[in-house]
Amino acid sequence: MSETLLSSRNLAFELYEVLDAEGLTQRERFAEHNRETFDAAISTARSIAEKYFAPHNRKNDENEPRYEDGKAILIPEVKPAVDAFLEAGFLNAARSFEAGGMQLPTLLSQACFAHFQAANAASTSYPFLTMGAANLIESFGTEEQKQRFLQPMIEGRFFGTMALTEPHAGSSLSDIRTRAEPAADGSYRLKGNKIFISGGDHPLSENIVHMVLAKLPDAPAGVKGISLFIVPKFLVNDDGSLGARNDVLLAGLFHKMGWRGTTSTALNFGDNGHCVGYLVGKPHQGLSCMFQMMNEARIGVGMGAVMLGYAGYLYSLEYARERPQGRLPDSKDPTTAPVSIIQHADIKRMLLTQKAYVEGAFDLGLYAARLFDDTTTLATDIERRQAHELLDLLTPIVKSWPSEFCLKANELAIQILGGHGYTREYPVEQYYRDNRLNPIHEGTHGIQSLDLLGRKLAQNGGAGLKQLIRLIAETGARAQKYPSLTALREPLEHLVARLQSVTIGLLTDLAQGKVNSSLANSALYLKVFGHTVIGWRWLEQAIRAEEGLAKGNAADVDFYKGKLQAARYFLTWEVPGCHHELRLLENRDDTCLNMQDKWY
Amino acid sequence: MSETLLSSRNLAFELYEVLDAEGLTQRERFAEHNRETFDAAISTARSIAEKYFAPHNRKNDENEPRYEDGKAILIPEVKPAVDAFLEAGFLNAARSFEAGGMQLPTLLSQACFAHFQAANAASTSYPFLTMGAANLIESFGTEEQKQRFLQPMIEGRFFGTMALTEPHAGSSLSDIRTRAEPAADGSYRLKGNKIFISGGDHPLSENIVHMVLAKLPDAPAGVKGISLFIVPKFLVNDDGSLGARNDVLLAGLFHKMGWRGTTSTALNFGDNGHCVGYLVGKPHQGLSCMFQMMNEARIGVGMGAVMLGYAGYLYSLEYARERPQGRLPDSKDPTTAPVSIIQHADIKRMLLTQKAYVEGAFDLGLYAARLFDDTTTLATDIERRQAHELLDLLTPIVKSWPSEFCLKANELAIQILGGHGYTREYPVEQYYRDNRLNPIHEGTHGIQSLDLLGRKLAQNGGAGLKQLIRLIAETGARAQKYPSLTALREPLEHLVARLQSVTIGLLTDLAQGKVNSSLANSALYLKVFGHTVIGWRWLEQAIRAEEGLAKGNAADVDFYKGKLQAARYFLTWEVPGCHHELRLLENRDDTCLNMQDKWY
Repeated sequence: MSETLLSSRNLAFELYEVLDAEGLTQRERFAEHNRETFDAAISTARSIAEKYFAPHNRKNDENEPRYEDGKAILIPEVKPAVDAFLEAGFLNAARSFEAGGMQLPTLLSQACFAHFQAANAASTSYPFLTMGAANLIESFGTEEQKQRFLQPMIEGRFFGTMALTEPHAGSSLSDIRTRAEPAADGSYRLKGNKIFISGGDHPLSENIVHMVLAKLPDAPAGVKGISLFIVPKFLVNDDGSLGARNDVLLAGLFHKMGWRGTTSTALNFGDNGHCVGYLVGKPHQGLSCMFQMMNEARIGVGMGAVMLGYAGYLYSLEYARERPQGRLPDSKDPTTAPVSIIQHADIKRMLLTQKAYVEGAFDLGLYAARLFDDTTTLATDIERRQAHELLDLLTPIVKSWPSEFCLKANELAIQILGGHGYTREYPVEQYYRDNRLNPIHEGTHGIQSLDLLGRKLAQNGGAGLKQLIRLIAETGARAQKYPSLTALREPLEHLVARLQSVTIGLLTDLAQGKVNSSLANSALYLKVFGHTVIGWRWLEQAIRAEEGLAKGNAADVDFYKGKLQAARYFLTWEVPGCHHELRLLENRDDTCLNMQDKWY
Repeated sequence: MSETLLSSRNLAFELYEVLDAEGLTQRERFAEHNRETFDAAISTARSIAEKYFAPHNRKNDENEPRYEDGKAILIPEVKPAVDAFLEAGFLNAARSFEAGGMQLPTLLSQACFAHFQAANAASTSYPFLTMGAANLIESFGTEEQKQRFLQPMIEGRFFGTMALTEPHAGSSLSDIRTRAEPAADGSYRLKGNKIFISGGDHPLSENIVHMVLAKLPDAPAGVKGISLFIVPKFLVNDDGSLGARNDVLLAGLFHKMGWRGTTSTALNFGDNGHCVGYLVGKPHQGLSCMFQMMNEARIGVGMGAVMLGYAGYLYSLEYARERPQGRLPDSKDPTTAPVSIIQHADIKRMLLTQKAYVEGAFDLGLYAARLFDDTTTLATDIERRQAHELLDLLTPIVKSWPSEFCLKANELAIQILGGHGYTREYPVEQYYRDNRLNPIHEGTHGIQSLDLLGRKLAQNGGAGLKQLIRLIAETGARAQKYPSLTALREPLEHLVARLQSVTIGLLTDLAQGKVNSSLANSALYLKVFGHTVIGWRWLEQAIRAEEGLAKGNAADVDFYKGKLQAARYFLTWEVPGCHHELRLLENRDDTCLNMQDKWY
């Protein structure tokens, strides 16, 4: 049977040829692991994803959660799937042995998780959010909070959410109105409304732990007055048993275009005046705590976008191989047999584009996961800090690039299937609908572009950016060993050189206070920066492919040639096109900025 | 109330300032018309579209047609809407007075029809297909066929379809297998299966007239052996009354991602051996007849894509004006009031992009409609032929460009609404789903690109292309009067010059038999050619805006400034980017063409 979630050969390439997963086993934290334990975890993930998650992906879509008597009702297939995920230990794949985890590198836990994201984005959201909420409590919670809330989450009995967005404020967190009043017992009473809370209600766990942003009575205005609270659906007694229902009301469900199996909820906190919450971390510093979860979520969203793209790519590839239709332009004789559509040039283009987008973004997502490992397990403070700086810089790209281009991949997958692709009898239209969420949640595309240009670039004196430029140059230097890669390397080098100069210009403008004009075209900057990063990763993959070819394993030749062709596509069809956007950025083009409301 | 379907100011601009609709009234066929009769027709169209079509657009989506006892069941709102359309005469808007029509120019009938397309793409499909089928019989049917089938269609009692696609053949019409055997009475007996037949069954009319492609027993292989048949759902007696049910079986309905209100059917012809059909036109020449309907349909599909884009643009514009959120980058003080999101630079960009795509494509669609009028009402054979040649050349652009870029506009409309845009509580996600069909039906994007590059360019010795180049040059010459337009004109001129040279190179290659390599990147060519055409149309609009400004009507200043800004966006943000694709075309880049099946 052909693979439907991801190519295991490509995953092995990433782990063992590009990202040196085995090198991680030299580090103390991962010393108990080896390639066999890694592969075993991946194999388990694949089989559970195929057995429990993939089969109800369409049913999830066709039978979205229903609101009944204040509760969200899901189809019955979700719980056994999530339970299988929990039982196999994937919720704690990266957590330490002592804490009940597998102590896998994040690189590996992300590789495992990718299978679930490809199989069923909606059902996978519930454990995904729980992992993020658990990590947040682990980082910032008190010992008592960990005992009461984190431990049951690790055990898979409590699930989690992140509750940020409010109806009137949207992305503008500085304007949230949810209030938290201190109570006599040291806890707080919350009052406010949140919307678009994924997993805000469901019957999958004993309890749901909401991580809620709210403001204390003495809070300063804006983001510096936001605090973070644990607000459980059910209170938890000192002995760990469930207490009374907390005053968190499921006000309703949103009905989405796709990703329908995940409840998107409106939650009312404190309608009856007794919504109990517990402060996490220090007062007014909730947003910086929450950024840990948001950053995890952003990388997760990016990988989710990749995997929807990947599933669509594999499906359309298989379809193109099996579907006979038409003849090549130079052999129109209608008495000859039709060819498989994979032989048509434009189908090749649409498949190669998908491959370049999907495998490029897959590489970046796993690279980011490995960087996360570096932030915790590299030997020295300096090395760990450097990894952190680079990961911080790349996060908006890891989130936004796949959300845009793997959605585009899904659009192409539909196109390859033609009329069939547009029907719900085939899976690709659902991937497209599901993926359309990704440029919106966890910070819209616009927010990511401002985060990159207005914040991340200049952070720590531009340390992350300098590191990235150095890494790209190193890859370029290694590529010089292969004359065949010259045509791939040079477009990247030209782009990087010009991007650097544009960046310096924009940062100078920003430093001089020209904020509106320098941020106006941040979307263009995000695109070019993303293409630069993905172009770099493709050049890296191309080097590894050349290295692989040099080893002379006949069984691998086609795989490596495909890698080289996809790298060629990206670096010669996509990367050079970015000079147009760079020119607009260089000129500080104000066409959009100057547009007036009354002119539309 | 703000306008939701299209901007009537913009429509008036197109009709009376750009496309000289009043000039048409100088022609004999339209001599009874004037601006008042035109505006009355438009006003009627708008009010019927708003009153009968728009209100059930979402309901159509939520309650797609059901298959019951061999019939398709629709929601009850469709019939009154279609009936109102018929009663107001829009089915025959362009038909002559004697034939019961309004004898409007096609430009005007298209302008009227656009309102229905924006209000409810699905319900509008039924009369749309009927108009095309009726025109086909009018052009190629016998007097008896006209009496028996066309007349009831004109009266709105019979509806029509076009039945081309077969399960095994898809776009490859040369491989269709539906057979037509001559019967003793001069009619034929058809046998075969068709899929994706829009409007193939419904309860809206007394009868359905299928225009079916099939092959006679002695047919040569390929497209030169295709004949065209009328196959009615019910036979029609000599006195015009309905006879027996014909052997056309509704085998099932397809369930689509969007455009759900239009039945997409699988039809079985002749399962019981007595499916009666009537030959239209000459044997084996059915495809060239059908191309009339396909070309009409392609222009209609393009305009449909425009109008979905237009509706989404207007909705997101209104939302952006009314939604307060966040602050500008240079005024982050959280104690100040939030601004309307229309003030954010990236929202301005997304709105201006939509405006440029939607109004650019709207102009092109109406321009094509006016060209159609020229093909029938210009004074001389030569002039009419020239109009025909240009329309033929532009048809793949009129169809494909809006299908790609107005879909992109819908993607941006969702993005402006953020999380709300992704929910079915707002209309923009439906526009996006509906619009995703347009790059597929009536000839996929790939088919359009081959039609343009492999067929249309060289047709009639390149007469259409030469005419287009000349028209663009004339527009450029007129633009020289306005120094303010230099920055808009020059990018277009550069692009046209390079496109001409690329085109000559590709046509030379084609003439030398290098068909596979010269057609390989036809998708790139289609994009550049489309951007050239739309860029030309925007320069034309910009000239008219300057002319309008010069008249000094204060109430129009904002409108014209918006036009100039959208023209600036398209000609400086979009047009120059095409040089990248031209370079790939110049190089005959073979990256995609050389990709091998086993390398994916």
